Amino acid sequence: MKHVEGILVWNSRVIVAVDSKPATSLDYWVSLASSLCGFVAGFKVGLPFMFDYGVSGLRALRSSCDKLLIADFKLADIDHIMVLTVSRVVGYVDGVIAHAFVGLSGGLEGLKDYLDSLSIKLILIVSMSHWGSLDVIDVSVDRLLWVANRLKPWGLVAPATKPHVISYVRRRASWAKILAPGIGVQGARPGDGIRAGADYEIIGRLIVEAPNPLEVVKWINSEHDRILRGG
Amino acid sequence: MKHVEGILVWNSRVIVAVDSKPATSLDYWVSLASSLCGFVAGFKVGLPFMFDYGVSGLRALRSSCDKLLIADFKLADIDHIMVLTVSRVVGYVDGVIAHAFVGLSGGLEGLKDYLDSLSIKLILIVSMSHWGSLDVIDVSVDRLLWVANRLKPWGLVAPATKPHVISYVRRRASWAKILAPGIGVQGARPGDGIRAGADYEIIGRLIVEAPNPLEVVKWINSEHDRILRGG
Repeated sequence: MKHVEGILVWNSRVIVAVDSKPATSLDYWVSLASSLCGFVAGFKVGLPFMFDYGVSGLRALRSSCDKLLIADFKLADIDHIMVLTVSRVVGYVDGVIAHAFVGLSGGLEGLKDYLDSLSIKLILIVSMSHWGSLDVIDVSVDRLLWVANRLKPWGLVAPATKPHVISYVRRRASWAKILAPGIGVQGARPGDGIRAGADYEIIGRLIVEAPNPLEVVKWINSEHDRILRGG
Repeated sequence: MKHVEGILVWNSRVIVAVDSKPATSLDYWVSLASSLCGFVAGFKVGLPFMFDYGVSGLRALRSSCDKLLIADFKLADIDHIMVLTVSRVVGYVDGVIAHAFVGLSGGLEGLKDYLDSLSIKLILIVSMSHWGSLDVIDVSVDRLLWVANRLKPWGLVAPATKPHVISYVRRRASWAKILAPGIGVQGARPGDGIRAGADYEIIGRLIVEAPNPLEVVKWINSEHDRILRGG
């Protein structure tokens, strides 16, 4: 936290996942984004949100807060379809999450070129937070990092539930921002990702299902500050 | 093709991908689905359609034809998010496509249980049609088939651009329906998938961007008939 011309500025490491809360409304999310805007790094929107509120919902969310807004569609298709998908949300998102698993030619290369032309950040998943990630993804991590190193996207996703994977990704892709999900319901504690070398923690239910989301965000920010100060 | 009580019944092997045509309208797709309904096995809807027309668009498509309707969202997330995503389209789709690379625990197991409870078919991708599929997916095919054999979903996706992969999947997963994309613009000819052992061919642009989609479907059906008769 620092003061700039009397304004409180949080260099927050928290990206809020806008997906989890059932039976809610667009107004709820817009209001939540407004209230948390000054205290988080940004928001991440997944397919449930898109199916509920559509592109116009995304536009409303964008208008409510000018922090990082990431389309977490977990894209994993041929280039043609990934580009068609993203084309619908151009102007409303700063970053797009896709799976490194897709590979380069006819897949991520075309997506990367398209996003670069629009100055939208590409974020590639190289590991996931659930146990099943061990079945195929985690044993393929060197190949996934090879894909990542060829493309040099802005960011990589690696889970806070596996700090050793984050450390490994940190060493193998020093150029990347690392985004760590898996905190809260999935088992990792706030700060586990940052401590292992992540730049951001993606947190959903722990924040959005809390009685007072802002208090939780402030507490997580202070945990991050403590860890980054070596505490 | 066979005659049943005077009605012409096509046992078509064609699943039409409703995604590709740019700058169209929901009316176009509903009208196309109605006109092709008697001559295809079904339709497959991806994220561009969902972002353009939403769940209500899917409902309209469902009402226009009672053949197989597959949600091709290329799901590749933790179980919680995949279930939330699919929950939005329950009642409108017969099948859902997800990536085998997600793995079992905390991933596809939860999705499969949820779909089973609703009698919705799970279809898992074990290979893709683009060259980049060689980077990670195709070298992992035995692990992906291990995941598939543990879950025994209704179907598997393997591309007509790689007939040897379809043959391999056919041998390793004899219980599965195989759906083959990659025909037309992506390089395979209609019939290449069926000849290699697929049960259905997924075809998009070749049909939906044709001046007369119905004529193309009829021609592909006749090609399939010829191949299945050993021609």
